[in-house]
Amino acid sequence: LATTLEKCVKGKRTDFGKSGCGIARSLQIIGDWWSLLIVRDAFNGRNILSSRLKKLVDAGIFTVEPDPESALSHLYLLTPKGEQLCVILGALWQWGEDNCFEPGELKYQMVDRAEGMPLARLALTAQDGRKLGPRDYRVEARHG
Amino acid sequence: LATTLEKCVKGKRTDFGKSGCGIARSLQIIGDWWSLLIVRDAFNGRNILSSRLKKLVDAGIFTVEPDPESALSHLYLLTPKGEQLCVILGALWQWGEDNCFEPGELKYQMVDRAEGMPLARLALTAQDGRKLGPRDYRVEARHG
Repeated sequence: LATTLEKCVKGKRTDFGKSGCGIARSLQIIGDWWSLLIVRDAFNGRNILSSRLKKLVDAGIFTVEPDPESALSHLYLLTPKGEQLCVILGALWQWGEDNCFEPGELKYQMVDRAEGMPLARLALTAQDGRKLGPRDYRVEARHG
Repeated sequence: LATTLEKCVKGKRTDFGKSGCGIARSLQIIGDWWSLLIVRDAFNGRNILSSRLKKLVDAGIFTVEPDPESALSHLYLLTPKGEQLCVILGALWQWGEDNCFEPGELKYQMVDRAEGMPLARLALTAQDGRKLGPRDYRVEARHG
């Protein structure tokens, strides 16, 4: 971790694909500002067509399928790995909503399709269900 | 949202600070690959000293305090807004752990300080506690 930080501070972009830290590995793939916006739009059923998607296909976030309605185009579909990003999107949404809006502004909310209510707050919890604050966890290296 | 995606596809970096989407606003601030790594290290109590931190101070993620032990240096402390990023870090960690490791590799885990166990899985849930899959929510614009 110290080495990672040093490389950050020196401004060099390093390959974090082999870092021991899941956060670093996630950011290696989805740390470019546009990646999660594309994923967000894919969750919302928007059509996506861009050579930039190649990186996300290579990373296993999307698969490319022939478009049954047009021989000239392809469909980009979220893989299970890509679909699991919904939790990260949810966390980004709630943090943005809590910290980046003035009262009364128009904002997009993630709402439960069944009830139409905004999703419940995400919170860090222990295995036994205790809610954890930002100082209630530590980071530990493990093989597993 | 469509406009946002078009701008993504054209490769232009746009100002998302006024977007209606909390995800876009979050990424405006923490969407640079190095930002969340710095935040992660701050959670782990590491010392941070970098001119790059200015952006995160300006965004209200860190405050700068005089270092009581050295008149020449400063301490960068996470604000409450910065501390709330722990949920995003947790989501990134779990996604990375589930999707970016081979069996047996060394990895860092977020563990509960009290019990030493890895934190429970984050999951999207409705207000009434129902677990939601990636297709069980939609995005809705609201003033609020």
